[in-house]
Amino acid sequence: MWHGLFIALEGIDGSGTTTHLKLLSSWLTAKGYEVVKTHEPTNGRIGRVIREVLRDSSVPSAIDALLFAADRVDNTINCIQPALDQGKIVITDRYVESSIAYQTSSGLDMEWVRELNKLALTPNITILLDISPQVALGRKRKSKEKEKFERTAFLEKVRQIFLSRAEEAGFRVVNAEHSIKEVQSKIRKYVQPLLGNLK
Amino acid sequence: MWHGLFIALEGIDGSGTTTHLKLLSSWLTAKGYEVVKTHEPTNGRIGRVIREVLRDSSVPSAIDALLFAADRVDNTINCIQPALDQGKIVITDRYVESSIAYQTSSGLDMEWVRELNKLALTPNITILLDISPQVALGRKRKSKEKEKFERTAFLEKVRQIFLSRAEEAGFRVVNAEHSIKEVQSKIRKYVQPLLGNLK
Repeated sequence: MWHGLFIALEGIDGSGTTTHLKLLSSWLTAKGYEVVKTHEPTNGRIGRVIREVLRDSSVPSAIDALLFAADRVDNTINCIQPALDQGKIVITDRYVESSIAYQTSSGLDMEWVRELNKLALTPNITILLDISPQVALGRKRKSKEKEKFERTAFLEKVRQIFLSRAEEAGFRVVNAEHSIKEVQSKIRKYVQPLLGNLK
Repeated sequence: MWHGLFIALEGIDGSGTTTHLKLLSSWLTAKGYEVVKTHEPTNGRIGRVIREVLRDSSVPSAIDALLFAADRVDNTINCIQPALDQGKIVITDRYVESSIAYQTSSGLDMEWVRELNKLALTPNITILLDISPQVALGRKRKSKEKEKFERTAFLEKVRQIFLSRAEEAGFRVVNAEHSIKEVQSKIRKYVQPLLGNLK
């Protein structure tokens, strides 16, 4: 086990993981902790292929799943694990649970997706920013109504898998439909008790 | 099941899969069959990353395994399966068995590597070109003795896994230390009976 603290923020598109990662990081930095921020897909060589592949909607989700798992192992070994070993706080914007929720919603077997990711770490805390797809997509100002309808239905599936995994694995769930200030305050409340173990 | 014929050539580095693929393909084309040749890693977007990653020996083999599996699914769906559905003969220079033999030799669990590849097809025939690493590397004229020694030991492991899988799964094994002419003649002898089913 590592000396640091590994925090994963998860949630559907538009749930605010990126915003809250920044706010959480600033708060922790101000308290004097060394924080490493990371996100998926990464900006590395495998992450770049993922972005290319994701633009092509005809690509089967098994390929997404395998590439995300490869990118995750790469990022875990080269960035996350070393930082944790040095006692730093690592906050990731999405991790294994996003693969499980998204790729299972695209029709893959959940056990298979978990098996691909068996080399990933288990974060000390996973915080799920829960939000209804309608509200989340509203934030993203999409134009085409039909596309929005299909996307909403898909994200509702993703959301339900996130919620059932949260119950099963004991993630913290924060209602992300509230104001940024309220959501961030909840997140900090969950993170605060874990700081005691850090030097 | 498809109407075509799917042939996989497998073997350690220097066993001659590339040479024999070309010779086999010419023979089949001369007989009037439509042949599609393919190889791993592919020249596609994922194959390109694999080549980049393979050059970096510090990359963990789990990443290789995931990337090869992704490249294989991509190539299977976009090239191999459509050609087989059209009744063509597809010959591949390496397929799943190379992942199993190489990545297991690098320390991965065989069942995990097979699990990653559960979407790959089972070729109609897998032909293993068996050769001792000493002979294979001799063909490749490597300069540094120490590197050659380590590579030989590694390839011997790979070879043993290929052989044990061949016994388990019923692959055809050809002694690739013989002349190109003799080896190719054996390969054709194994392929010939399968042509009867093609129109």
